[in-house]
Order: sequence, then structure tokens, then C-alpha cells
Amino acid sequence: MSQFRKDPFSDRWVIFAEGRERRPNEYEQTAGRRRDARCPFCVGHEVDTPPAIHTYRSNGQRDDEWLVRVVPNMYPALVPRGTAEPSANGLYQTCAAVGAHEVIVETPRHVASFTELTDAEARCLLLAYRDRILVHGRAGHLKYALVFKNVGPAAGASLEHAHSQVVATPMIPPELQRELTAAERLYKAHGQCFFCRVIADELTHATRLVAQSDRFVAICPYASRMPYELWVLPREHSSKFESQDPTALAELADFLRLNLGKLESRHRQFAYNYFIHTGPFDTPHLNHYHWHIEVFPRLTTTAGLEWGAGYFINPVLPEHAAAIMRS
Amino acid sequence: MSQFRKDPFSDRWVIFAEGRERRPNEYEQTAGRRRDARCPFCVGHEVDTPPAIHTYRSNGQRDDEWLVRVVPNMYPALVPRGTAEPSANGLYQTCAAVGAHEVIVETPRHVASFTELTDAEARCLLLAYRDRILVHGRAGHLKYALVFKNVGPAAGASLEHAHSQVVATPMIPPELQRELTAAERLYKAHGQCFFCRVIADELTHATRLVAQSDRFVAICPYASRMPYELWVLPREHSSKFESQDPTALAELADFLRLNLGKLESRHRQFAYNYFIHTGPFDTPHLNHYHWHIEVFPRLTTTAGLEWGAGYFINPVLPEHAAAIMRS
Repeated sequence: MSQFRKDPFSDRWVIFAEGRERRPNEYEQTAGRRRDARCPFCVGHEVDTPPAIHTYRSNGQRDDEWLVRVVPNMYPALVPRGTAEPSANGLYQTCAAVGAHEVIVETPRHVASFTELTDAEARCLLLAYRDRILVHGRAGHLKYALVFKNVGPAAGASLEHAHSQVVATPMIPPELQRELTAAERLYKAHGQCFFCRVIADELTHATRLVAQSDRFVAICPYASRMPYELWVLPREHSSKFESQDPTALAELADFLRLNLGKLESRHRQFAYNYFIHTGPFDTPHLNHYHWHIEVFPRLTTTAGLEWGAGYFINPVLPEHAAAIMRS
Repeated sequence: MSQFRKDPFSDRWVIFAEGRERRPNEYEQTAGRRRDARCPFCVGHEVDTPPAIHTYRSNGQRDDEWLVRVVPNMYPALVPRGTAEPSANGLYQTCAAVGAHEVIVETPRHVASFTELTDAEARCLLLAYRDRILVHGRAGHLKYALVFKNVGPAAGASLEHAHSQVVATPMIPPELQRELTAAERLYKAHGQCFFCRVIADELTHATRLVAQSDRFVAICPYASRMPYELWVLPREHSSKFESQDPTALAELADFLRLNLGKLESRHRQFAYNYFIHTGPFDTPHLNHYHWHIEVFPRLTTTAGLEWGAGYFINPVLPEHAAAIMRS
């Protein structure tokens, strides 16, 4: 049975995933994208994944044609059944790893990059992100859904075909809780959403501004952990990604593709993660929190200083990164 | 000028290191150990590093012979001069990256593994760890020194020759602060050092115990983030690594080598970080904190779930890892 365990010395939750255990010698530290003989995400190979949870089609498409497909993860870290109440285990705390772990296949074609998605695929993908968050929010026993994407082996991707993931859990993830707590403190100190202040500052001075559209901005954050770290935020205050309407999501799809393209064009085999930070399910609207997407490039390797101290070393100032990406 | 910058949304400090910046296309995501044409750490190549800060020799060794050598990092993330006072920078906080960044060359011979060190080298290395922490503690303007080691490219090592690093900073690192806060809360709740409780529990039940010596234990922690994560702790309560006497440090050197050997013998090209967590400089003795060494294997790649949510996924239960390492 998969389980969460809490580290008492850091309050960090770790997911122990049943069925993913391998013998030590089977760990391979490989580089280069793995090319599977038969890609389970390609059109025509639908039988290689569990049955789809949801399929997105264009108007007038035949039943066997699709743009975006949501399927259960073949090796889920979380399971849908069980009671999600933390309980004592000797000195420690544990909790059944109840929740959801889904894969969103972004296109029927075997392409690796978000920038190779068609307009319709990219827009359907963003709709799928919204829909999955809304569906898990309605389940009642879950508190949060993280939408994320891993691109390239250095970013933890095991398959090349463009895909995203959704993990829904019965607790608010530690990184979100940290951000929510800080945002609330900043709101109290400044009487205003601090994300809104940062956006206004960048729209005025453009020190770390990379791009803007009608509804969105892309900036390199002041204390970027990684070279070329990029955040995409809505210009208008909103704590919920999933409250965006289809028009805004279509604009976001185009804006995200444009900015990911800037990063990809400057790096060979650009590996990155991105994730959506949105408010928890049980908070309909927060004045102090502002949803955003964090693009986290994997150009440097974290080492003892990052893991042991929590200090990141970044050789590229975000002002320089933003200037390069603007040019 | 190198600088710390604080991310307002996470209170994380990032070090922006002058002189380490590269153009984007120069980032390489390579695997396999880099083999330098001429290793700057080998005996006879001392001219390739800045002059030594300290050199450890055996009794009776000639001046040009050494066991362990402490040198300044060629590309330091921190600089010794300047005022280490946080100050405002627009909406944000910054601080000069004042401190120390040193490399400890662990042997004059070109060997990659801690397990290949001689008894004398391993023991000198542990003495060097202690001495560097003591030296930086006496400087007055610094609060903490993290001793760490990166082994293998997957763990962020850029040179193969066995070496460790020391980073001393004018603030307590975020990961330490987090651990100190939790340890204090646990002490108040249980009336006892929680690390001591964990050690007693493992010595009684051996659920996650890997090995023990007269003075030390090695355990796989209950909520291990990584497969085969290993912590080494002193059996007797102590908040300060640097208060260990040379006899204890010699025992620790042997014990650490034994346990790292268990990990290496089970994995090809075993990449890992280890770091010493000890009390801050200005805390002579803490009842609630217990120094230890965390060995952090790099067998899996962190991805969107780790960075976006703060959840680690670990496919190996620490009970299984400990049983495998005991056998």
C-alpha cells in the first residue's frame, strides 16, 4: 500500500510508492532522451495505456481522433481508494497515499516539445489542466491538485512524447503552504497582493520582464533559483488558475508556447519542469495569493549546498537572463 | 559582486555568484565522469590551485608530501571581504555574499571514492572538517559553516578527484533553520532530544538500523527522500560535530567509509552528496539538536512533483533499504 510519511525533522512529506520499487542495481543514471521502441502515447497505441479518463476532440472530429488524452498513470504514486487521515506509526506520522495521479498526453503525434503543439492542442491542454483541477476539487476528500510537466531526462521525464501530469493529494503540498504563508504575511505588511506589486514594478521598469500579452506577463524572478527561471502570471489579480475562462486560457497557451520557445531556441536539449501554483480547493478566492506558472530550467545540477543548506547557487542574474530572452 | 538574494515568496536565499556566469549555449547536460587532462588536485599539481590555506601531513612527512589539503575554491560563490548586512533592493532583500568557500582535497592520489582513502587520509579529512568549522566560527561575522561532498556528475561534482567543500555564511542556512525549529518543537513536546529517541528506537528494534559502532549509528531515516538515504549520528547526545575529539573522529572516519562502501558496492557509479548538520556557531550546546551526517544518494531524478509541490517520491522503503545494506 502506497503511503505518505512525514519527516519529523523537516515536516516534509515523502510518498512511498508501492510497485515502483526496484533492486538497487537496476538504477541507471542515463543521459539522452530514452527512445522507446513503441511509444504508448502515440495515436493508434491507445491500448498501451489504461483506458482514458477523458478525451478532448475538435468539433467534427471522428471518435478515433483526439487532440489531448487524460489517462491514469501506469505507475501511480497515489491510489483513489482509502482513508486519508494521518495516523501515528511509532514515533512517526503516516497517511495512506490517497489521491490521483494522471497523465495528460498533449498530442497524438510523437513530438517532444510544447512548441510543436498545434494551436488547438495547446489550447485543449490548458483546458484539460483547468478541468482536472476542477474535477479533483469536487471529490471532497482532496485538498490540492498540482499540474506539472517534466521535459527531458535531466528533468525526470521517462518518456519523450509531450505529456503533463496531475497529482491530487489530501493535503496542501509543502511548497504551496510555504508560498501561501509568505504571501499572507506580505499582504498584511503591504496591504496589497505582493505578486501584484511585483507585476506592476516589472511593467513599469521592465528590469526582469521577458514578455507581456493582454492578460499575462512573463518575468525572471528576482531570486531565481535556476538560470533562466521564468514565471508566467496573470496581470489581473486571481488566486485560481482554474477560474480562467477559455479565452484567457487560449491566450495563455499561445503566450506559454512563445516563451518556452525562447528558452528552447537558446539551449540544446533544454530540460525543464513547469508547474502551476494555484490556490487550494477550499479557498474560493484569496486576496493575498496570485496563481502563476513556474518554469524551472534544469541547466545546472543541484549539489550538497542546495540539499544540505537550502542555498541555490545561480550563475546568471535574472536581469541578464531577461535581457537575453527579450533580445 | 556576488550577492545573496531573498525570494519573498519562500524566504529562500539564492547566491548569485560573480564570475560563474556563462552564456546559455554553454550549458552542457553531460553524464559520465569528466576526466580532466590534468587534475588540479593531484600531488605535483599544487600550482594549479590557489595556495593552500592549510595542509595536513603525517608525522615525519617531508614538506612536499601531504595527506589532505585545504585550498580556496577557484570559482568561489562567496568572498571573504565586505559587510554582511541584509539591505533593501526595491521590493526585495539582498546581502553581500560574504563568507568562505573552500575545497578540501582528500588525498594526493587520483582516486574518486572515499572508500579508497587510506586510514590516515580519512582521519585527517575528518580533522580538517572539524578545524574549518572552528576557524570560521572564530571569524565573528559568520553564523554557520556547511561541510559537504559531491560525488559523481549526477550529484553536481565537476572533478573526479576525491574532495569536499566548506561554505561559511553570515546567516543560518534555510535547511538548518528548518531542522533547528522542528527539533526545538519536538524537544518541547517530548521532553527529550527527538534524535536521541530515534536512535534508542533503532538500537532496540533495528527496523531501519544499518550499522553501529561504539560511538555511532547509521540508519535509513523513516521518511527518506531518496532510495538508500543514510544518516550517521553519534549515539551520545551532542549538538556540535566540531566538539568531537580526535579519537571519536577517527572512529567516525572508519565508520563512514564502511557505510559508504556498502552503498557503492551495490550501485554502479554511485552518485551522492553528503553534508554535516551541526549546531550554529553561536550555540555552544543545544539540548534539542543532535549533529549528524546525511548521505543523500542521487539514484532518482527530482522532477516537477518535488520542485512544484515539495513531495518526494521514493520507491524504496527505508526498512527494505536498511535490510539490504545490513545483508
